[in-house]
Amino acid sequence: MTKAKKLLTTASAVVAAGVVGAVAANAATPAAGAKDASLRSTRHLTIAAATKAAQATLDAAVKEGQAVSVAVVDRDGNTLVTLRGDGAGPQSYASAEKKAFTAVSWNAPTSALVDRLAKTPNLKDIPGTLFLPGGAPVQAKGAPVAAIGVAGAPSGDLDEKFARAGVAALGG
Amino acid sequence: MTKAKKLLTTASAVVAAGVVGAVAANAATPAAGAKDASLRSTRHLTIAAATKAAQATLDAAVKEGQAVSVAVVDRDGNTLVTLRGDGAGPQSYASAEKKAFTAVSWNAPTSALVDRLAKTPNLKDIPGTLFLPGGAPVQAKGAPVAAIGVAGAPSGDLDEKFARAGVAALGG
Amino acid sequence: MTKAKKLLTTASAVVAAGVVGAVAANAATPAAGAKDASLRSTRHLTIAAATKAAQATLDAAVKEGQAVSVAVVDRDGNTLVTLRGDGAGPQSYASAEKKAFTAVSWNAPTSALVDRLAKTPNLKDIPGTLFLPGGAPVQAKGAPVAAIGVAGAPSGDLDEKFARAGVAALGG
Amino acid sequence: MTKAKKLLTTASAVVAAGVVGAVAANAATPAAGAKDASLRSTRHLTIAAATKAAQATLDAAVKEGQAVSVAVVDRDGNTLVTLRGDGAGPQSYASAEKKAFTAVSWNAPTSALVDRLAKTPNLKDIPGTLFLPGGAPVQAKGAPVAAIGVAGAPSGDLDEKFARAGVAALGG
Amino acid sequence: MTKAKKLLTTASAVVAAGVVGAVAANAATPAAGAKDASLRSTRHLTIAAATKAAQATLDAAVKEGQAVSVAVVDRDGNTLVTLRGDGAGPQSYASAEKKAFTAVSWNAPTSALVDRLAKTPNLKDIPGTLFLPGGAPVQAKGAPVAAIGVAGAPSGDLDEKFARAGVAALGG
Amino acid sequence: MTKAKKLLTTASAVVAAGVVGAVAANAATPAAGAKDASLRSTRHLTIAAATKAAQATLDAAVKEGQAVSVAVVDRDGNTLVTLRGDGAGPQSYASAEKKAFTAVSWNAPTSALVDRLAKTPNLKDIPGTLFLPGGAPVQAKGAPVAAIGVAGAPSGDLDEKFARAGVAALGG
Amino acid sequence: MTKAKKLLTTASAVVAAGVVGAVAANAATPAAGAKDASLRSTRHLTIAAATKAAQATLDAAVKEGQAVSVAVVDRDGNTLVTLRGDGAGPQSYASAEKKAFTAVSWNAPTSALVDRLAKTPNLKDIPGTLFLPGGAPVQAKGAPVAAIGVAGAPSGDLDEKFARAGVAALGG
Amino acid sequence: MTKAKKLLTTASAVVAAGVVGAVAANAATPAAGAKDASLRSTRHLTIAAATKAAQATLDAAVKEGQAVSVAVVDRDGNTLVTLRGDGAGPQSYASAEKKAFTAVSWNAPTSALVDRLAKTPNLKDIPGTLFLPGGAPVQAKGAPVAAIGVAGAPSGDLDEKFARAGVAALGG
Repeated sequence: MTKAKKLLTTASAVVAAGVVGAVAANAATPAAGAKDASLRSTRHLTIAAATKAAQATLDAAVKEGQAVSVAVVDRDGNTLVTLRGDGAGPQSYASAEKKAFTAVSWNAPTSALVDRLAKTPNLKDIPGTLFLPGGAPVQAKGAPVAAIGVAGAPSGDLDEKFARAGVAALGG
Repeated sequence: MTKAKKLLTTASAVVAAGVVGAVAANAATPAAGAKDASLRSTRHLTIAAATKAAQATLDAAVKEGQAVSVAVVDRDGNTLVTLRGDGAGPQSYASAEKKAFTAVSWNAPTSALVDRLAKTPNLKDIPGTLFLPGGAPVQAKGAPVAAIGVAGAPSGDLDEKFARAGVAALGG
Repeated sequence: MTKAKKLLTTASAVVAAGVVGAVAANAATPAAGAKDASLRSTRHLTIAAATKAAQATLDAAVKEGQAVSVAVVDRDGNTLVTLRGDGAGPQSYASAEKKAFTAVSWNAPTSALVDRLAKTPNLKDIPGTLFLPGGAPVQAKGAPVAAIGVAGAPSGDLDEKFARAGVAALGG
Repeated sequence: MTKAKKLLTTASAVVAAGVVGAVAANAATPAAGAKDASLRSTRHLTIAAATKAAQATLDAAVKEGQAVSVAVVDRDGNTLVTLRGDGAGPQSYASAEKKAFTAVSWNAPTSALVDRLAKTPNLKDIPGTLFLPGGAPVQAKGAPVAAIGVAGAPSGDLDEKFARAGVAALGG
Repeated sequence: MTKAKKLLTTASAVVAAGVVGAVAANAATPAAGAKDASLRSTRHLTIAAATKAAQATLDAAVKEGQAVSVAVVDRDGNTLVTLRGDGAGPQSYASAEKKAFTAVSWNAPTSALVDRLAKTPNLKDIPGTLFLPGGAPVQAKGAPVAAIGVAGAPSGDLDEKFARAGVAALGG
Repeated sequence: MTKAKKLLTTASAVVAAGVVGAVAANAATPAAGAKDASLRSTRHLTIAAATKAAQATLDAAVKEGQAVSVAVVDRDGNTLVTLRGDGAGPQSYASAEKKAFTAVSWNAPTSALVDRLAKTPNLKDIPGTLFLPGGAPVQAKGAPVAAIGVAGAPSGDLDEKFARAGVAALGG
Repeated sequence: MTKAKKLLTTASAVVAAGVVGAVAANAATPAAGAKDASLRSTRHLTIAAATKAAQATLDAAVKEGQAVSVAVVDRDGNTLVTLRGDGAGPQSYASAEKKAFTAVSWNAPTSALVDRLAKTPNLKDIPGTLFLPGGAPVQAKGAPVAAIGVAGAPSGDLDEKFARAGVAALGG
Repeated sequence: MTKAKKLLTTASAVVAAGVVGAVAANAATPAAGAKDASLRSTRHLTIAAATKAAQATLDAAVKEGQAVSVAVVDRDGNTLVTLRGDGAGPQSYASAEKKAFTAVSWNAPTSALVDRLAKTPNLKDIPGTLFLPGGAPVQAKGAPVAAIGVAGAPSGDLDEKFARAGVAALGG
């Protein structure tokens, strides 16, 4: 996988160059740059890792005879991967994305967040969220970097079991 | 893969049974059935095949140093798989889905459809469509069953080249 | 009905051919095909059957002096037929679609699902759903293939009675 | 059909009574009424007529081997009937509704309106409209009362031919 | 007011003629008509009456020193008139429309419907509805033809008092 | 009108007091205030003036036998008044609002802005805008304070003529 | 800051002139003006004050080691300033805007409004609102002119503490 | 600024800890981690830098007497900062965000992209984009990390001049 990563790094540079090439006269102006002091870094799952996790999630569901949809979102809530499992109900696709969004927002499994609603019921009115079991966070040194959401199994606990299997596949 | 397929078939039955189990008193009523004469069959990519095609599409882009997003949609326009490639621009995710939707709607590569707009420019106002190269249909005996959409490369022609690589991976 | 079906089958081929004809240079490339191993089949109500069921549903309501809207959706949640009954309230059209979506998602009458919310109240936050009586699933060998939703009668139980009449008209 | 109509008229009264019954204490207040001078009448297709027209439209398409979606909207732009034909592309459903909306808004076939855009191109930015052939108005004494929209055939002219067949079935 | 009404009736004919004139070749085809048997009539508030009612509603609020928004919708849920009172809160405009929609859908004051939720809490998930006092139906012989919605006063009961004043202005 | 204005001013104070009363413990904290130096004033049409202008607009249309919708928006794009004229097409309501929004955004009649698109065609992709004649700005000392939008007449020039009649009714 | 304000006042006049200049033939017509009697004034935070308050809010959060998003909205609910703090969760941005909208709508801290829901639970269904602590109103002589919303801290009480710090920075 | 940064780093850890604390039993499971090989880093403007750039942008506009809105978005298209300048037209807020989104998507000033549309006009149908001058990218070593969008000045060229002033303030 190191090779793939290297390729990708190169790719990024090439892309930037390519695009800049198309509009070179403007983008080359000095004003376009930002000092290092203006920047901070965030960590994201590579698409290779996100795909691997999503696949492991789906495999865990199929192994138990369940038809589910799977979503992986990053820390900013952007969807990285979706898989609509064979036979999964039409409600499962959006549910999986929202569960993942919820898990990464609070850096916690959505099953734990459901309990939290007892104290603060209106949390569930926040746009993009869904407070049902089936979302599991992915962390790097305790900080949230992504989450996996699953929907479509007969219970949310089953959904979340599969999501955890996906997280486990990241081997952290 | 035959084993996986078998598992899945079993899974579907189990799922149905599971759900019905939860609400047995009602779902067991005879009125819920439809005669065979009321039914028709449609063909879909399995999620295994769709994932394979999406991965082959992304691999083709990475190999050429391009950062793209990839989407696979079925004949009804439902998204089966999405992959947001490392470094792909934020506009690429929705673009990929819409290109795939467009390709499957007309059963043609979106590059061919762009030409078609010369005669009927308002086609591009149809909801869900995007008339940019980068969408490629997947067919079974000439009929559309799915499509792959790609966005994020410096040109739509490159996007579509990668989409075709994904279709080729289906080996039809 | 066999004749109509035959016509339709022919029609599909013609359509595909017609569209391909318009963009022949591209669509004829070998890369567009998918192997049989990549495909699975799903069953859908024919539009003829769906229309018949929707009409039977509306007739049942009119017979009891009720003004309702009716919707039939397929297993993927796509709407196949809608009928806005004479005098039906403006809220009934969207309600009927959402009830049908909910019934097909869980393969159960929505009246049964309302009870299920007691245990998992947040299910009702899943996009596209509406947990009110009036949705009835259509099954083929126990698996969900469609659902009928009704709204506008003074009670959800009445709505669901009419939906069941529609399912019964499919004679399965 | 007279009998059905009679039933329906009765039905309306019953419905109103039923609902009022549920909330009788309030709805019975005198303040709820409007004088005749405050009211005007508009004419609408009955759902029976709208369904008949939609079916005739779809039959015309199937007869020519085309897979289309059909929509009937009333003068206020509300959808009365939709039919998603077997095998119709996913883009056709929303297109059919928008073509019908456009035809009833300008009381003209959408094919005629396409020409009109030459003078006023931004008409096509009005929400809900789609300026593609395939929409046909239904009139009562020259005034628009409804429209039929069709989408999915290889050309808009074919779509509109089928829509006209639906209008013809109303026998006016 | 009779003169205005007469003017309007003439106006409608002129409008139709005008538009048809613009696209005469097509709209003049015999196929555009619908037989009387295909039609039913519905009653609507004239815009003159709706404006009068809205103004009376706002006047009632201002008289009591309250800043509110007012909406009048017809039986199909289409908005006829809106007035955003001076100083009304930003949440009031959409609230007023939704209260009116809710009142006309169930032909009852929304204060009465709030009670109804005790039995069927999920009614409030129906799109377009808002179950807060402040909506009052307008009826013609007991059937709903319109509704007035008010929002922005410190209590819903006050909102509804103003709405009733608007209905009363219709003098039915 | 001075009396009405006075009433309203009083009303605002009362409303604030009323609401504060409901939540007194918190709202009474000193931290809630803003110094005068932090504030600027903007001018708005009173609802009385906006209603008068909207009515004059509609009257002008009816006088010429045209069925239109009318909207008045303030400088921030918020809708103050809407009137859906008797018989106005379903596309006219949203069109009127968007024309008014466009006129107030550029402080110019939309007929003038249409010409402007020749140089900068993509202006019309700005959300909320519609570049069709029929919108007229309302100014106070040359600065935009509101706009009137009209839609539904056979030509945009007619629409704008009626909008101008509405502005004229403000007598500035 | 007085100088900046002066500049701005000049700026407004220039802008108006600039725009009018572009479309002079039309905008110069006498009909565009409104009499003073047609106008009322409202007070708004200057962008300078709103930015200062937003920054003070964020500073208060960072000082306590919390990652939050901040929004300032005006009395009409329009957003004036947003700041997405480093590391703030993806759910925080929209939440902050909605809390501010809610606080300005009822001229009260959202923590106080949460209690209010006990009596009127459906208030939370009003579009644009979010009934979670973290919103604080800004007042001028008791009337609401703006509000600050904060989201992302582990508790809503913390969010609201920061919002109050922002209001305090306005020094009123 | 190093101190602020340090505070923030600490803050992130605290936040995570706080949230985890609330749901400790679950989040503490080993399965939540991701290996370093699964992660990649991206660079973002700090909120401090983004605010500084937005303020410099607005200052440049005010200095020339122009009323504009300003938006800063990150590489993933998420909005970091918005400022609605005093007197800016209602269309400017959304325009500024879309221009920034467009600039960061193609890593080029939007003025350069407008030219690009000559070859590929349908690029402008990609969701979230707006092809008008006024967007300027922010780069780190040539790669896009953010963009600034401006709208509201009489010409897009002016808008973009102000956006460049904001980028220049980052001193890169």
